[in-house]
Amino acid sequence: MTDTPLRKLRCAMVGGGRDAFIGAVHRKAMALDGQIELVAGALSSSPEKARASGRDLGLADDRNHGDWQSLLADELKRPPQERIDFVSIVTPNHVHFPVAEAFAEAGFHVVCDKPLVHTRAQADALVAAVKKQGTVFGVTYNYTGYPMVRQAREMVRSGQLGELRKVVVEYNQGWLASHVEGSGSNKQADWRTDPARSGAAGAIGDIGSHAENLVASVTGLEIESLCADLSALVPGRMLDDDGSLLLRFKGGARGVLIASQINTGLENDLRLRISGALGTLEWRQERPSELLHLPHDGPKRILTRGSPWLCESAQRASRLPAGHPEGFIEAFANIYGGVVADIRARLAGIAADPLAADYPRVEDGARGVRFIESAVASAASEAKWTAW
Amino acid sequence: MTDTPLRKLRCAMVGGGRDAFIGAVHRKAMALDGQIELVAGALSSSPEKARASGRDLGLADDRNHGDWQSLLADELKRPPQERIDFVSIVTPNHVHFPVAEAFAEAGFHVVCDKPLVHTRAQADALVAAVKKQGTVFGVTYNYTGYPMVRQAREMVRSGQLGELRKVVVEYNQGWLASHVEGSGSNKQADWRTDPARSGAAGAIGDIGSHAENLVASVTGLEIESLCADLSALVPGRMLDDDGSLLLRFKGGARGVLIASQINTGLENDLRLRISGALGTLEWRQERPSELLHLPHDGPKRILTRGSPWLCESAQRASRLPAGHPEGFIEAFANIYGGVVADIRARLAGIAADPLAADYPRVEDGARGVRFIESAVASAASEAKWTAW
Amino acid sequence: MTDTPLRKLRCAMVGGGRDAFIGAVHRKAMALDGQIELVAGALSSSPEKARASGRDLGLADDRNHGDWQSLLADELKRPPQERIDFVSIVTPNHVHFPVAEAFAEAGFHVVCDKPLVHTRAQADALVAAVKKQGTVFGVTYNYTGYPMVRQAREMVRSGQLGELRKVVVEYNQGWLASHVEGSGSNKQADWRTDPARSGAAGAIGDIGSHAENLVASVTGLEIESLCADLSALVPGRMLDDDGSLLLRFKGGARGVLIASQINTGLENDLRLRISGALGTLEWRQERPSELLHLPHDGPKRILTRGSPWLCESAQRASRLPAGHPEGFIEAFANIYGGVVADIRARLAGIAADPLAADYPRVEDGARGVRFIESAVASAASEAKWTAW
Amino acid sequence: MTDTPLRKLRCAMVGGGRDAFIGAVHRKAMALDGQIELVAGALSSSPEKARASGRDLGLADDRNHGDWQSLLADELKRPPQERIDFVSIVTPNHVHFPVAEAFAEAGFHVVCDKPLVHTRAQADALVAAVKKQGTVFGVTYNYTGYPMVRQAREMVRSGQLGELRKVVVEYNQGWLASHVEGSGSNKQADWRTDPARSGAAGAIGDIGSHAENLVASVTGLEIESLCADLSALVPGRMLDDDGSLLLRFKGGARGVLIASQINTGLENDLRLRISGALGTLEWRQERPSELLHLPHDGPKRILTRGSPWLCESAQRASRLPAGHPEGFIEAFANIYGGVVADIRARLAGIAADPLAADYPRVEDGARGVRFIESAVASAASEAKWTAW
Repeated sequence: MTDTPLRKLRCAMVGGGRDAFIGAVHRKAMALDGQIELVAGALSSSPEKARASGRDLGLADDRNHGDWQSLLADELKRPPQERIDFVSIVTPNHVHFPVAEAFAEAGFHVVCDKPLVHTRAQADALVAAVKKQGTVFGVTYNYTGYPMVRQAREMVRSGQLGELRKVVVEYNQGWLASHVEGSGSNKQADWRTDPARSGAAGAIGDIGSHAENLVASVTGLEIESLCADLSALVPGRMLDDDGSLLLRFKGGARGVLIASQINTGLENDLRLRISGALGTLEWRQERPSELLHLPHDGPKRILTRGSPWLCESAQRASRLPAGHPEGFIEAFANIYGGVVADIRARLAGIAADPLAADYPRVEDGARGVRFIESAVASAASEAKWTAW
Repeated sequence: MTDTPLRKLRCAMVGGGRDAFIGAVHRKAMALDGQIELVAGALSSSPEKARASGRDLGLADDRNHGDWQSLLADELKRPPQERIDFVSIVTPNHVHFPVAEAFAEAGFHVVCDKPLVHTRAQADALVAAVKKQGTVFGVTYNYTGYPMVRQAREMVRSGQLGELRKVVVEYNQGWLASHVEGSGSNKQADWRTDPARSGAAGAIGDIGSHAENLVASVTGLEIESLCADLSALVPGRMLDDDGSLLLRFKGGARGVLIASQINTGLENDLRLRISGALGTLEWRQERPSELLHLPHDGPKRILTRGSPWLCESAQRASRLPAGHPEGFIEAFANIYGGVVADIRARLAGIAADPLAADYPRVEDGARGVRFIESAVASAASEAKWTAW
Repeated sequence: MTDTPLRKLRCAMVGGGRDAFIGAVHRKAMALDGQIELVAGALSSSPEKARASGRDLGLADDRNHGDWQSLLADELKRPPQERIDFVSIVTPNHVHFPVAEAFAEAGFHVVCDKPLVHTRAQADALVAAVKKQGTVFGVTYNYTGYPMVRQAREMVRSGQLGELRKVVVEYNQGWLASHVEGSGSNKQADWRTDPARSGAAGAIGDIGSHAENLVASVTGLEIESLCADLSALVPGRMLDDDGSLLLRFKGGARGVLIASQINTGLENDLRLRISGALGTLEWRQERPSELLHLPHDGPKRILTRGSPWLCESAQRASRLPAGHPEGFIEAFANIYGGVVADIRARLAGIAADPLAADYPRVEDGARGVRFIESAVASAASEAKWTAW
Repeated sequence: MTDTPLRKLRCAMVGGGRDAFIGAVHRKAMALDGQIELVAGALSSSPEKARASGRDLGLADDRNHGDWQSLLADELKRPPQERIDFVSIVTPNHVHFPVAEAFAEAGFHVVCDKPLVHTRAQADALVAAVKKQGTVFGVTYNYTGYPMVRQAREMVRSGQLGELRKVVVEYNQGWLASHVEGSGSNKQADWRTDPARSGAAGAIGDIGSHAENLVASVTGLEIESLCADLSALVPGRMLDDDGSLLLRFKGGARGVLIASQINTGLENDLRLRISGALGTLEWRQERPSELLHLPHDGPKRILTRGSPWLCESAQRASRLPAGHPEGFIEAFANIYGGVVADIRARLAGIAADPLAADYPRVEDGARGVRFIESAVASAASEAKWTAW
């Protein structure tokens, strides 16, 4: 620690107003470690609701905007010592692209929720914009913020599993097991099942993209081709609520990816199993502090968050001793922490510590969009394998 | 109970001699409930080993044969009061067909290990033979003998899950994660990875067929088409050691079936998850006494073997009170118990109680062969869906 | 929600400077919900370290004090609109009493860590002071902040367990399984094993008091008499590191309380089991979102945080949907949330909503001190039962 | 294996007739491994029921006795090649002593259920009789037959836990949570809650003695003194249905033993936790194939039955590969297997292999009786500690 404490970074939020689930999560994740302050916002697509939401959060009137265009214009006029350090975009999916592109083009650092955008073309444009500006762009694939996911990643990287052979990732939920959309009671169900706001993909976009990111992040494997069966199993639903995919990875490993929102009674059952020649790892989001390691030559091991024998990356992502449960918000905060570290490095004009600036980037978001497009294309195809 | 105790049924065993894993399991399963006595055998393909094995088990010399043909010929000569009530075939797969066909044609009741035979033509021939003779023919898909599997089946049948939508079945093992075959140290690995003795399928035949049977037994769903990716992931292996399949069922439900023997460190991880409109069930073979039930309208429930609120079928398949673990052998014994009940009914000239004569039949075995053939065909095809 | 957002409450912290584990936890818990801002402090017993710690946290110089006496004096001079709303005391135990008493006597609302003070006399004095002032005084028995603990409490209160018969509470840790104190590497071990700073009790004070509070909070039972065996099992240790107690409750229920810090490899294993005539509940802190309910007349049930069928108290204590893990910090934040609700009610001049102002009070802290004294007395006694 | 197979040992059973739960378990355990045949019996205290039960089991008329005295007299008249090798006593507790003493005095090998007898005087007499005759006498503390219990024992013996410090054993059931005795519907409840047939102890005798044996067997620790609180918590019950004990072991380790049958909804929850300076072990009977090992210097480990890295004692006690569940009957059969090995060694005139002849002896049974007497004495005492 230092005697010159770092100032909090200034953040503006787009979306996430009253009744929005994920916006509140982002704000708690930002608040947790005392490194970020929310100073501005355009918190809803309805100007009135946007401003009311901003007042709830104590935003100053002159930084509490009715739309994101005003927010952007206003920020550009402000002097550097007042200007936001980054914008956080937590709107429904269809709004991600215009906002992200505008802020990125204007040279702002950005955090954007997933899935990044609707089309590969949009994704490519965004990657190009960020590359041109040299700015920070984080995508809140929050599950990769869990310490034990980082431990798993490190164990794969360092060869503890040997050559990877099989990957099974599942993301099962039950909240769309009945036709809840359109009832007015579930705002999130409304937009997530609406092609206009969610894009061409339902479950495979919403949670399948998390699964893809988890696999890519932990294993480093690249998908070579895939075979998808996407279905809308609840009568009357307009987008897929269930998907199963066979995966073939470059190098020969095989995989299965399941993303389903019609598993009645399941909550947020994201789970990953990776088998290599030397061992297997299993992780479940609902018990995030445990990583099961099955080495080929000895007893099963349960690695737990907070233990001294974890890798440095996992240690750094942890706040509490073992046995003191951390959860979803902490993992989310770790993504923000990575973005903050990267921005601070730029502010200081130094290279970022890679163990600190550890977060999913715009390229990861773009790969996720490509995955969704490939899955949707495969689902419509009679051919077994759709090349990546 | 009755004052006229039932005599033990007389059994002959083919295969299962010294060093054979599964033969000993069959014998313990037969012994458990005191309803069966092993009186004859041809316990190995090597006549010498066969007889030595029979001596180990205390078989009388004149019923301890060097080959199954002698066993069959000898039994046919014996008077009814001495003759075996049924034969149990526990050889490697390639021997199933000739033995099963010969005994069935000769009018004997048969128990045969799975997968039943190598080809659909063989399976059809066997079904026809059994039908013609009107005999009992049980297939030891032993996992359906677990009480909680029967509870799951009853819950589906009685509509507690509503219309079924998604089925995920996995059977993961790790014992073939390295190239153990051919080393002389693992007899089972030798024949299971040898196309001449195992047929065209490796993992998908050995354990995939168990998975298929479990799904069919519990859900009653019929596969309409499937899409398989079968691989030999361990270098030098001649048969698939890993398989992943997408399933489409008649009526619209979707499924995934995974059968893999290269999951380092996994033991015997057969698990089933079924989601319907009204609830989800989860069962794991490694904790067989628990069935997780997730109703759509209330808390998760753990149903446990031995509880008074289970269905009669599950109650009958249980020997001990709740909390007193039963396992693999008991489940196996339940299959034998079903066969015994069916044979006893025939001996008594009465209709069998369906709750007692509850065991997989030759038709189930034939469907399993069809499944394996379809999976192998799909794996070789460029088309996405292979019709059942 | 309202268009007139509530201002954040102003807090001063005493203790919790650099290297202090629990101070950082308090600050994260305060930050999580955006209802509290830390504006002042006396963060260490060393004035220099206190000020350096305050600078780390961005405290203004004139509110960053070298000792708590200055802090108190300064606050008393400030106008109401600047003055802190409450003080949070997170020092080692021996400092709790003077600070808490001084602030309470001066009319400040207080949050104080547990165990409250060293002696029953101190506790009584504090209760009297708070009563006289009519102020808010919360004790951070943080484990009662878990939603599923509140669900358990409600199930007991509403009679779902019937008459209570047996309570088993355990709090097992392993961090003191070797002689870590005095090495200079573990500040917390140093003071926790030092009678001068921890009081007459080691494990029974540090974690036994949490166990007592959990039982009292959930069951409402009152201890009638107890029988304690307290030991220092690690050679050279000066205070008990292991304790086991038999409990007799008024009304006839029986109990066991175990508090041990020498269980090598255990992390933070606080667990509670309560059996009544109609059912049993089990809860484990390390899987805090699950509450196992065993009714006498049906299957086991797993109640999970975030489910719609939980009681209102549990619902309110939850921030995220089921399956999105919450943890230790959220539970801690719920204690602060209760204090904040109570203070806000007083600021508004209205009666507090009991479901909102839900937190352990000074009386609970005093009862905890009494428990510790009784346990220590019993341990020194040859009589079987020590009256409460 | 050998070409001269060993003949089955001949067993007579006393008790265990129709409707007796535990008799059927003994018979299944005997049958499992094909080493024992039941040839004689006196299966009930009612001569008629005894003979009817014997007929059910296929006993020859001349060895199917109406009382155990006739059985004993008859066996003594038979030539050695016909005579039973051992008797198995599975009656209610109060019958154990006269039968066991008579058979032991007559020079028969004996297996007897637990608790061995009602009083220490009886136990001493029995120990003396067995010592005089030099016969085999096994006590079916069946839980020590689980492979992972033997693994735990070996890990303690070989020093992997270091010096032991704390032992917590619990045996919780719920089947006596209501007043089921006397209703005529639960024969076992009737005699277990009746002092005339169960002795001075209820739960502490029935299941507390299992807990004591498990601790003694695994840890080798000797109780120095104990402090017991025994209660009859269900109104109208005549014997304790709940007990909690503090234990002090020679050498300084501390312990807690809980035995309770009023934990509504719990099934057969026997669990053991042992902490030493170098590690902790946890085992639960309801998941008997797993042993949790927490070493002080590395991740938690789950040892599983059937794994190649277990000790030889655990390997020998296992019949199936890892992942193929074994249970209660197999553990029970391991006790019989130990007795059989010891008898066979005597028949062969050789020293028994200690790894084979591994079973609880008459001295273990006698120690269990002493434990029960001490617990009952302590419960009636005002003194804190009752010397062992």
